Amino acid sequence: MTSDGEWMALALEEARKGIGRTAPNPPVGAVIVKDGVVLGKGWHRAAGQPHAEREAIAGARGKDLRGSTIYVTLEPCSTHGRTPPCTQGIIDAGISRVVYACVDRNPDHAGRADRILTESGIEVVSGTGGEKGEEILRPFFKVRETGLPWVIWKTAMSLDGRITRPPGEGQWLTGELARADVQRLRSTVDAILTSGETVRRDNPALTIRIPELLEGRNQPWRVVATDKPETMPADAPLFSDEWRDRTLIRPRHDPEQTLRDLVKDQGVLSVMVEAGGVYSAALLEAGLIDEAVIYYAPILCGGPSPGLAGAGLSESLRLEEVDFQQFGSDVCLRGVVRKKG
Amino acid sequence: MTSDGEWMALALEEARKGIGRTAPNPPVGAVIVKDGVVLGKGWHRAAGQPHAEREAIAGARGKDLRGSTIYVTLEPCSTHGRTPPCTQGIIDAGISRVVYACVDRNPDHAGRADRILTESGIEVVSGTGGEKGEEILRPFFKVRETGLPWVIWKTAMSLDGRITRPPGEGQWLTGELARADVQRLRSTVDAILTSGETVRRDNPALTIRIPELLEGRNQPWRVVATDKPETMPADAPLFSDEWRDRTLIRPRHDPEQTLRDLVKDQGVLSVMVEAGGVYSAALLEAGLIDEAVIYYAPILCGGPSPGLAGAGLSESLRLEEVDFQQFGSDVCLRGVVRKKG
Repeated sequence: MTSDGEWMALALEEARKGIGRTAPNPPVGAVIVKDGVVLGKGWHRAAGQPHAEREAIAGARGKDLRGSTIYVTLEPCSTHGRTPPCTQGIIDAGISRVVYACVDRNPDHAGRADRILTESGIEVVSGTGGEKGEEILRPFFKVRETGLPWVIWKTAMSLDGRITRPPGEGQWLTGELARADVQRLRSTVDAILTSGETVRRDNPALTIRIPELLEGRNQPWRVVATDKPETMPADAPLFSDEWRDRTLIRPRHDPEQTLRDLVKDQGVLSVMVEAGGVYSAALLEAGLIDEAVIYYAPILCGGPSPGLAGAGLSESLRLEEVDFQQFGSDVCLRGVVRKKG
Repeated sequence: MTSDGEWMALALEEARKGIGRTAPNPPVGAVIVKDGVVLGKGWHRAAGQPHAEREAIAGARGKDLRGSTIYVTLEPCSTHGRTPPCTQGIIDAGISRVVYACVDRNPDHAGRADRILTESGIEVVSGTGGEKGEEILRPFFKVRETGLPWVIWKTAMSLDGRITRPPGEGQWLTGELARADVQRLRSTVDAILTSGETVRRDNPALTIRIPELLEGRNQPWRVVATDKPETMPADAPLFSDEWRDRTLIRPRHDPEQTLRDLVKDQGVLSVMVEAGGVYSAALLEAGLIDEAVIYYAPILCGGPSPGLAGAGLSESLRLEEVDFQQFGSDVCLRGVVRKKG
């Protein structure tokens, strides 16, 4: 017999398909199961599109859902948004049981679905697979609670923490597999933040270049933080390629405001920082980084360009939930920055 | 049926027990097997003590060795040293078959054992498990071929390549498990090389402090590279503790000569460098480092003390055979520096 946890894992798989695509909505997945058989599954594809529950119910069209369970990664919505409430959809479909992972943290909604569903004779179980669900929903919850997006600092370094190789050697530190993973990572965020210095020095495109990663979604916003926009090269890909309308210039001196504005104006949930050591250090010092993804190439470089530069942190930042993954001869470390307090 | 490779793995296990104990001799292990049963095994414990083959034969005393195979990690010696040749010991014991991993690279000896043993009607197989055997014998072969010891650079860094934490925080970057592994690592080398700066700043003891790691062996030599010996604090543990006669002061400006002298005067095969970024970088730049062992703590420090400092390397150094191991929340990366050419 398959347990609730295992069916929820399937719903979480569905939810993951939406990461980086649903802003300002959260990525959510759903699976409908009856007598050990999946009758329908679905994920929320984009704001304005049907919610995951509706997708799953549509997938089970024509089947008798009495006696079935729907597994959802977030508490079903109980209010009218751009779409009618999912609680009503579940009741109308004749589903008998609802298992969801995370409670909606909005105090106006939290637990409201339980009451509505229970009053209609539907059994409700919450919290199953909650930890994994929280991970997927971190950006959404952070935006709701703070008005700031989830910020991922991504960098590639040598083993001695340098981001440039000695003069005369190639530009890249890491190998192709690691760089392909960066493409995947870009496809999980709504915006990429860089600095004017990085544009001037490296002239990056900051785009998703693997077509299947781009299918059904826009390029992430490309945000250049600079107080001297007039020094930006007009012929840089950021300002001249086919996605130039996805490039924004914002002041450098107040990164917190830039991040707040991205939430407010572009509906962004998640931002990846791809910048040099000085700007990265400034964001870390300001406590604006939530997660670090560092690709290490197995080389020692020496030299003057550390991955984190500047005045130095007044306190060291500790990463938690650290995870390693190998890409060819490179290794990727990922961890969440521990919040003080 | 157990294969030659599996029995050799057992002999390699024996050999590993001798790492860091046998200088100027190599660590070697041996196992005698007959009809799938181990009759004797042994390892070379220290220069002047019996060779591994002799230990294994002694362990099988009273047993009929006709029809048995001896697995040895290095070609048996065929000349009189401080002990009589092992080829003769094998013949006298009545062993029928010899399987060894690595050929002795000394051209006067290489393959000589094969001839002597074959002439006595003993079957000889060489090269089994050779790669693992080479790894154990790297320091011994390097000394023979170059007069220089195998040099391991060990350091502990933050994820951004710093070796000091922000002011006001503790001294240690890594946790207890990683620091215990450093003790184990010290027990695999014959000498530890540091710089005068490190002594002045950190005042380390550079000793093996876990009693079982020290059993049957001396503390490694502690070598301080300084051109100003008069500035060394006389009350530092290095110069005042019970192992002060294991501390040597050598000039800082010619590390290659220091390493050569350690081979010539102390019979050293392997050296571990435990020093700050400047001296470490000097050794790396001079091409004197063979292997790097870097412990990473999951913290970001910023600040002015990189693990590799100085003018920078003119070429990046690539590590091969990279291997990761976790120690609590720290990770240890180990790799061999690729030689140019």
